[in-house]
Amino acid sequence: MELIENIQFVNIIEFLGTFAFAISGVRMASTKNFDLFGAFTIGFVTAIGGGTLRDLFIGVTPFWMLNPVYLWATLLALLFVLLFKNKVVRLQYTFFLFDSIGLGLFVVVGAEKTLAMGFAPWVAVIMGTITGSFGGMLRDILITQIPLIFRKEIYALACVAGAIFFTMGYALDLNIVVNEVATASIVILTRILAVKFQWHLPILKGEKNKL
Amino acid sequence: MELIENIQFVNIIEFLGTFAFAISGVRMASTKNFDLFGAFTIGFVTAIGGGTLRDLFIGVTPFWMLNPVYLWATLLALLFVLLFKNKVVRLQYTFFLFDSIGLGLFVVVGAEKTLAMGFAPWVAVIMGTITGSFGGMLRDILITQIPLIFRKEIYALACVAGAIFFTMGYALDLNIVVNEVATASIVILTRILAVKFQWHLPILKGEKNKL
Amino acid sequence: MELIENIQFVNIIEFLGTFAFAISGVRMASTKNFDLFGAFTIGFVTAIGGGTLRDLFIGVTPFWMLNPVYLWATLLALLFVLLFKNKVVRLQYTFFLFDSIGLGLFVVVGAEKTLAMGFAPWVAVIMGTITGSFGGMLRDILITQIPLIFRKEIYALACVAGAIFFTMGYALDLNIVVNEVATASIVILTRILAVKFQWHLPILKGEKNKL
Repeated sequence: MELIENIQFVNIIEFLGTFAFAISGVRMASTKNFDLFGAFTIGFVTAIGGGTLRDLFIGVTPFWMLNPVYLWATLLALLFVLLFKNKVVRLQYTFFLFDSIGLGLFVVVGAEKTLAMGFAPWVAVIMGTITGSFGGMLRDILITQIPLIFRKEIYALACVAGAIFFTMGYALDLNIVVNEVATASIVILTRILAVKFQWHLPILKGEKNKL
Repeated sequence: MELIENIQFVNIIEFLGTFAFAISGVRMASTKNFDLFGAFTIGFVTAIGGGTLRDLFIGVTPFWMLNPVYLWATLLALLFVLLFKNKVVRLQYTFFLFDSIGLGLFVVVGAEKTLAMGFAPWVAVIMGTITGSFGGMLRDILITQIPLIFRKEIYALACVAGAIFFTMGYALDLNIVVNEVATASIVILTRILAVKFQWHLPILKGEKNKL
Repeated sequence: MELIENIQFVNIIEFLGTFAFAISGVRMASTKNFDLFGAFTIGFVTAIGGGTLRDLFIGVTPFWMLNPVYLWATLLALLFVLLFKNKVVRLQYTFFLFDSIGLGLFVVVGAEKTLAMGFAPWVAVIMGTITGSFGGMLRDILITQIPLIFRKEIYALACVAGAIFFTMGYALDLNIVVNEVATASIVILTRILAVKFQWHLPILKGEKNKL
């Protein structure tokens, strides 16, 4: 009973995270005047791209091919942006929260699935990071823009920190639910604090001489 | 005997479709002054990119690794553009027809292969669409141009319409050859009519405020 | 004993090649003012991207997920560029040599692994080429720059030549070590001579009329 409630809670969070990721993709597409098909595709890729890369790498069927909920979340995101276009901006902070929560959950799912497949802990750290942050990277490539995660915020680093924590907790036999919640919290907090205090990673300056 | 003739007919169509897709890639590469290797690669990716993504997603060996005919079709396309460069423009409409026929066939192959692997109907619709339209998307990414399918024509929508028809026909136990021919016809007709009457999907306008 | 020495020698070469490829990625990232995470990611993708595509295509787990040495080589490359930034330019020729040696080895590994999986010789030629040259292509896509291999040098052609030689040697039952060394030498020499004498493939000029 409790377990079912827990699963339902995770499913709701996952739906909200997918929805928030898709919203960010659809809005980005709208800045490039894409048509509805383009906007949907960008939204979907943003939401499922990271997990798809992970699944191809660890050798399983991409998760979204086994459950249509991610498709529905993206369609809903497209509809939402269409209907409430100019209100979306005011909801900026709400979406930022959903997006951060989704990020936390994606990192947990990515690391956990990789460990469950028997890969080494450092692979789980990479896959947790890819799951959380490479959907946005693919989105940026599709609109031919230099990926944001390579230049702004410590988005990716929040994933790395969370994935390292989860993998260590797993190795130390930490209770799985505690580990999941703690990991997601680390990702979410790091992300929120990074944006609030404008934490950045050092920039790698170009050489004086041209390549 | 009839079956063999049918297979041979499909093979010829498939060769022509691959050839037409490769031509579009090679010509696009020539606008960017690529060298012969670059032009060949872009042509090949345009022709086989969509089906390759599909095969990676459904977990089978990419189709072009099992039969060199797609390689030959691309080499022939490169040779053709080299020899008849300034005549290619006059053949514009012929290539458009080949391209549309190839599109129809690619959608059929994509949806059918996915259903044969036991995936859900809605997955088959997505895979039919990917097979038909994502080769062109990969081509555009390789030449760092915003993918055309996100902004122009209802190229992708013709794939979606055909893939939905095929999947429904499959569920209703429609005769497979009838289903294949009807699906391809829907894709080809939708595409031709869309170009002729300049059908477009609505554009998703950007928000007034910046992201 | 001899075999172990041979394996260790190959491992050292592979490490140097990965290091050189990663250096090229990190330096390219620095021209775009990426942060450390971005620079690391670009370096890693440059080093392992070609082999990863190959492994996904031939249906095995990406090689770098089974051994952390590629991760370490990339971290070392990042550190190296950070510490010796303005000296890196003076080491240009040394890196060019490492890079060429890495290229030779990557082509051998790519072709050999593909043949070992039972694919046709022409598939091995393609996979050898992809292993050697598609990491740089992915690097260029991530920084939204038209891939260099489509326009400059005969980088990719050196891979093709080597991969064809290896595949023919394999078919003719040439001693494997002799074949490996000869193939790598062909790739390395072709690349060095191509740069020295500025060999280029013919450019495919654009059509007079617009597409």
